[in-house]
Amino acid sequence: MTSDWGERDRAVVWHGFTQMDSYLENSPVIVERAEGHYLNDVDGRRYLDAISSLWVSTFGHRVPELDAAVVDQLGRVAHSTQLGNGNRIVIELSEALAAVVPVDRPHFLYASDGAAAVEQALKIAFQYWRNQSAQGRDRYLALGGAYHGDTVGALSLGGDGFGTDLFDPLRFPVVRAPGYEDPHALATASKKVRAHGDELAAVVVEPLVQGAAGMHVADIGAFGELQQACRNTGALLICDEVATGFGRTGALFASERCGLRPDIMCLGKGLTGGYLPMSATAVTENVFEAFLGEDLGPRTLYHGHSYQGNALAAAVALRHLRLIEERSALANVNERSKQLDVLLEERVAPLPAVADIRLAGLMCGVELHPGERLGRRVCAAALRRGVLLRPLGDVIVLMPPLSVTNEEIATIVDVLAGSILEVTA
Amino acid sequence: MTSDWGERDRAVVWHGFTQMDSYLENSPVIVERAEGHYLNDVDGRRYLDAISSLWVSTFGHRVPELDAAVVDQLGRVAHSTQLGNGNRIVIELSEALAAVVPVDRPHFLYASDGAAAVEQALKIAFQYWRNQSAQGRDRYLALGGAYHGDTVGALSLGGDGFGTDLFDPLRFPVVRAPGYEDPHALATASKKVRAHGDELAAVVVEPLVQGAAGMHVADIGAFGELQQACRNTGALLICDEVATGFGRTGALFASERCGLRPDIMCLGKGLTGGYLPMSATAVTENVFEAFLGEDLGPRTLYHGHSYQGNALAAAVALRHLRLIEERSALANVNERSKQLDVLLEERVAPLPAVADIRLAGLMCGVELHPGERLGRRVCAAALRRGVLLRPLGDVIVLMPPLSVTNEEIATIVDVLAGSILEVTA
Repeated sequence: MTSDWGERDRAVVWHGFTQMDSYLENSPVIVERAEGHYLNDVDGRRYLDAISSLWVSTFGHRVPELDAAVVDQLGRVAHSTQLGNGNRIVIELSEALAAVVPVDRPHFLYASDGAAAVEQALKIAFQYWRNQSAQGRDRYLALGGAYHGDTVGALSLGGDGFGTDLFDPLRFPVVRAPGYEDPHALATASKKVRAHGDELAAVVVEPLVQGAAGMHVADIGAFGELQQACRNTGALLICDEVATGFGRTGALFASERCGLRPDIMCLGKGLTGGYLPMSATAVTENVFEAFLGEDLGPRTLYHGHSYQGNALAAAVALRHLRLIEERSALANVNERSKQLDVLLEERVAPLPAVADIRLAGLMCGVELHPGERLGRRVCAAALRRGVLLRPLGDVIVLMPPLSVTNEEIATIVDVLAGSILEVTA
Repeated sequence: MTSDWGERDRAVVWHGFTQMDSYLENSPVIVERAEGHYLNDVDGRRYLDAISSLWVSTFGHRVPELDAAVVDQLGRVAHSTQLGNGNRIVIELSEALAAVVPVDRPHFLYASDGAAAVEQALKIAFQYWRNQSAQGRDRYLALGGAYHGDTVGALSLGGDGFGTDLFDPLRFPVVRAPGYEDPHALATASKKVRAHGDELAAVVVEPLVQGAAGMHVADIGAFGELQQACRNTGALLICDEVATGFGRTGALFASERCGLRPDIMCLGKGLTGGYLPMSATAVTENVFEAFLGEDLGPRTLYHGHSYQGNALAAAVALRHLRLIEERSALANVNERSKQLDVLLEERVAPLPAVADIRLAGLMCGVELHPGERLGRRVCAAALRRGVLLRPLGDVIVLMPPLSVTNEEIATIVDVLAGSILEVTA
């Protein structure tokens, strides 16, 4: 780094999921501006953003249509409260989302952090039963390796990795089934739902892919049984689509690929195309109705974030939803996914350092055999070749924008193969 | 309501802290656009926004300087990840904040929801002790009536009002001191800190004002003893300035008015002037250093939200911080607060329906004697007179923008007095 921006950064910013003692040694990219799928750093270097700025951007950066949506809404109002009042753009967004989410007659409760959407989901599921005077429906079933966010409730649902066990005295316990790393995860989960059904407020899953766990992909066929177990026992089904939603797996929502119609669905990340913080909890009419009652009474959900339904974020999210259609994003995801599959098989799978490759749509994990900070070093080598990656331990994550081109996929695989070879030579 | 926007809203949106069954009966304002301190609804009616769009906007809406900051940053990049990487505008914002927060050599960890900033604070305090192998520092002291947000950790710190006790099976227990409604709250809290000092990870307070509790104002002089108790026992002091920060109480931070220099401070709401979701957890160098260690090792804080350090929000927050200075916002808050005090004393205090008036800067609560939904009905009457208010039970909250004018303060008091008279006639 030729400029002093790194030192200035290290002096005042605390980066999430980052050991700040070695921050500067780990080749941080200090972004100044961006163009399309590329980020430019403060020293004028340019990188292909192959992690979609941490799994959020769908069409890359400085998307003319999304920029225009921000400017247009800025000329109306940036934000007005949703507490007891409304905003036109939020209604329009909610109507547009209602037409596409696999949730029956949905209602949308907004927040800004994805974790907050999960917290809303778990509180709604909990109060849903209390509002019906159901006894003992206080627990959740969640999966091993699950990641649902870092706030205490979301962390409680999440698996024990990522240093979460440290916080055990703060976390509430859950009924735990195995994660997708285990091929029988969903069958075991279904059995546990049947066994614990009348204690469960809800069952929480990441449909199709457990991303943070290392891109583990579930057996699509096994979700039906889990859904049936939920229906039979009454436990609500919560699908956390924060990472998988908005085209990432080749369908608009991974739940569709799994044949799931959840009672509650969590949205985030791609909701605004990677522009602005916005998350949402979608619930069925049935769940929503359980909260109707006397004004100011106890059936009300007393939960709400100040920036819930932020108008600028809503305007971008609405325009983005149309853009997915206009740009035939899903078709591109499926084509590029096939291309990535073939290229990884040819160029990366044969490398001795590679243990496994897992892919669903444009969520991809290349697992290396355990080594001395191998994931880190491969990503550093890729960065020197102009491609920004970020590992999950020994798993190199490839998460290019939905609009990634044929040539860019070829570049990513080329750089990845070269970087693995360099580091393990 | 002449248009059908209300019905459309009710059909797809779930509003926080709102009983949706009576949503349409409670005169919701469906905002279409705004100008300065005024909101315009979908039917062209215009309202003075006397709650700052739920305590967030500082200079009202469509502020030219803030609009320009959004557009300028939009021409660079809307968002890039903070996980292991940086962004120039976030560094600049953090440097500017570092110069003004009452926290020693601060470092800033960003999120989007205020509750997430509180969750970060409580997890940091918890892990701070674990990283030093301290045993038994697993608890928190928090106050009665406290409100720190709605996620499970924040909810655990919060008092038992607002329907939170429903979620008791999910909340972790805390050592509870009285809230500011009790004049001895802080003295009792100090005693409890001394009694439980070696079990406490941290003590959490809303400096000066407990807003959501009904605008209860603490005795400024009693904070010194609490801080001393923290210093003596080692318990970290967390100041939640989400509601009080950025000029709201007449100082840039309420902690300054209370003579507090917290170990950890939570920021939100006014951070972006009410434009975009952004929150932050500021920690001292001492706290930050407890997390330094081996790369990928257990001393790292494994916590981070995808939109942490969003570039558009950071650009607005940076411009907003300068604007507070340029527009002499604090001087106006203090002048308008005095004016409000005098006018409320003259016009509102004498009304038989009024039980108490509490004011700190431009955070104000007018408490009515308990009555049949009196708070709601007064606010509905005010709305018919063109002023948007929102009650906390029987407490009418006045929270005008920091830039409110002499004439607008007069209007607000006039409308409030008239509305109380109308409803209680």
